[in-house]
Amino acid sequence: MALVNENYLKLPGSYLFSEIARRVNQFKTTNPQADIIRLGIGDVTRPLPPAVIEAMQKGVEEMRSPETFRGYGPEQGYQFLIEKIIENDFVPRGVELSVDEVFVSDGAKSDTANFQELFGVNNIMAVTDPVYPVYVDSNVMAGRTGMFNNDKGQYEGIVYLPCTEENGMKPSLPEKRVDMIYLCFPNNPTGMTLSKEELKLWVEYARENRSILLFDAAYEAYIQEEGVPHSIFEIEGAREVAVEFRSFSKTAGFTGTRCAYTIVPKEVMVYDSKGKAHSLNQLWLRRQTTKFNGASYPVQAGAVAVFSQEGKLQIKETINYYMENARIIREGLQGAGYKVFGGVNAPYIWMKTPNNMGSWEFFDQLMEGANVVGTPGAGFGANGEGYFRLTAFGTRENTLRAIERIRTRM
Amino acid sequence: MALVNENYLKLPGSYLFSEIARRVNQFKTTNPQADIIRLGIGDVTRPLPPAVIEAMQKGVEEMRSPETFRGYGPEQGYQFLIEKIIENDFVPRGVELSVDEVFVSDGAKSDTANFQELFGVNNIMAVTDPVYPVYVDSNVMAGRTGMFNNDKGQYEGIVYLPCTEENGMKPSLPEKRVDMIYLCFPNNPTGMTLSKEELKLWVEYARENRSILLFDAAYEAYIQEEGVPHSIFEIEGAREVAVEFRSFSKTAGFTGTRCAYTIVPKEVMVYDSKGKAHSLNQLWLRRQTTKFNGASYPVQAGAVAVFSQEGKLQIKETINYYMENARIIREGLQGAGYKVFGGVNAPYIWMKTPNNMGSWEFFDQLMEGANVVGTPGAGFGANGEGYFRLTAFGTRENTLRAIERIRTRM
Repeated sequence: MALVNENYLKLPGSYLFSEIARRVNQFKTTNPQADIIRLGIGDVTRPLPPAVIEAMQKGVEEMRSPETFRGYGPEQGYQFLIEKIIENDFVPRGVELSVDEVFVSDGAKSDTANFQELFGVNNIMAVTDPVYPVYVDSNVMAGRTGMFNNDKGQYEGIVYLPCTEENGMKPSLPEKRVDMIYLCFPNNPTGMTLSKEELKLWVEYARENRSILLFDAAYEAYIQEEGVPHSIFEIEGAREVAVEFRSFSKTAGFTGTRCAYTIVPKEVMVYDSKGKAHSLNQLWLRRQTTKFNGASYPVQAGAVAVFSQEGKLQIKETINYYMENARIIREGLQGAGYKVFGGVNAPYIWMKTPNNMGSWEFFDQLMEGANVVGTPGAGFGANGEGYFRLTAFGTRENTLRAIERIRTRM
Repeated sequence: MALVNENYLKLPGSYLFSEIARRVNQFKTTNPQADIIRLGIGDVTRPLPPAVIEAMQKGVEEMRSPETFRGYGPEQGYQFLIEKIIENDFVPRGVELSVDEVFVSDGAKSDTANFQELFGVNNIMAVTDPVYPVYVDSNVMAGRTGMFNNDKGQYEGIVYLPCTEENGMKPSLPEKRVDMIYLCFPNNPTGMTLSKEELKLWVEYARENRSILLFDAAYEAYIQEEGVPHSIFEIEGAREVAVEFRSFSKTAGFTGTRCAYTIVPKEVMVYDSKGKAHSLNQLWLRRQTTKFNGASYPVQAGAVAVFSQEGKLQIKETINYYMENARIIREGLQGAGYKVFGGVNAPYIWMKTPNNMGSWEFFDQLMEGANVVGTPGAGFGANGEGYFRLTAFGTRENTLRAIERIRTRM
């Protein structure tokens, strides 16, 4: 008799974004005329940069004739892309990487979800709370947690690092030792960043405890302020303890096109029960060559144009567009008397619900009152209760209209 | 201290295709003039069909403007593609599927490797021997096996189903009960198929034992003979016990473009420790929505053209091209006195090495004598020893030259 992976049964029935979709659909059924504006799911609205389109067209065209056709590529990505990534995203920040430390993939969601496979099931993992649900759910599926505690809204066995108003949405070092630490900065959902000094504490902690930092930098391109690190590897010693996830999704509009990359320095080690060190880089290579077959060639051909002269300008323009949305949301909400976080170095605005309202209650009120859909903070963890996420990825027009409606109708 | 997933340490150091690459590179260093022909790794050489190129160009073009741009798609694939898959690949064979039973992905390698996650770690799995290494390695990584036994060339805890000359390369039902059974027909590496009657025995076995058949049909498009089932779902009752993996890789040249799909009927159940049934379809949906973000939109836009009038003709032409290669290899080797299997309904030819030579020894002799690279059977499992795989995916010219060289120089 085939047995189920019982860890899957620990997952609560409904996934955050399915529940949102369900409520929106229900509302639309009873209010068919309502003009709903979605600032909820973190999907982009600006198209791919023309430089990427043209490079991808060329890549597709190469697949037409036997001379230029490409079959299986390297599972870890084409060198032409990896070299540009290193040259543009890391060298200017003083970070040296070798080509076999960069792994191109079909998405940071896949990579952040799959990376935990390399670790023993008995590692203690820590996440911030609120948190991007994929880190948690993938570890639940792998059996690295206990049951979900409905009262606490948290899983047993996970160390949660609260990000609250009191600590300025910046997690404190864990009180008990942990082995795997997921950090995402600029943060989804709070939109907050860590300074170099703050990140340094985490690197030091990891070095002292031989823990691994799983650093999600998917939003680094949105950093506007000087002095905020874009990569964990800007911190001395991070090469020994950190892995970094990057993505073209939010940087260049690849949410539907799919391309990302993960940095695994050769010095990062995990240990077996005899204390022997094993290279995470080699383990990830083995994982990717066995269970993945590389990102699509035309997609990689398009992604490399992100680093061309025109590509860079076009991307900057898109990011400016979204960050102007972020400013409109942030200042608009502040002007209307709401307390907001983020939106300065990130496309996410994390607002406090009025009068300590529950975040799902505020979701319903906002949808019914202003016909604006956002994401209830509780969906990101227990400490997200009482907060609400809006994203800057909408169109300018919708962003302006949404804020106007919140100001006048709520 | 971060601990490694010790199951990874059970994997022998060198992966089959890396070892081949290493030997080829060494040979090239000492023989820089050698004109090597590769009929080893199963990569295609014919370009994408023009219908696919044009559809993909159009898909890329849509990403240029905000009106037609596509961001996150459904993780399980676009309905426009799923409907065509059902209509063309299944309905004509009498197989009815609903759209939420088809999951589009970036590859059958990913799907066959990831699907085991849904099962408890204590399930007993069975594979044929020889076998596509991904089924085994992904289960080793998950901890569903014991250690590798060097003497036997097999992992402890796996039930191996020998495919030998004696049984015509057709596996017998396992003697002890197993829970998960990987079957691949047309087979990689042997190129053999199972008849409807033979497949029926497996479906009956699975129903009696509540086991799951993980059926890899990546090569079904190569079936030439009437009466050979293309899908496990042509067998009555299979909907209750089988999952099927399909791919555009070998059918339409997508090895570097990446698109595949997996069929998970709603009736297939796995059980928890209390005997309660859980739907594999729902579990896979949960897995894919949590750990995957859908195949690239332009790629799906291209894949759907495989089912257009022109697409179908163009693909037929490519498959005929490879199957003519298969005939040339099969008959050429037979004419030269070798014993061969496969190559009739599959792009793989499985040859017996002369004089019971070891398959790595034959690999070296063939490379040195004829400058032809194939794949040693031992790389596919203990029962592959004494055999050798050649693929029909080369160019016509190289295929003819390779056979001529084997005939005259070996």
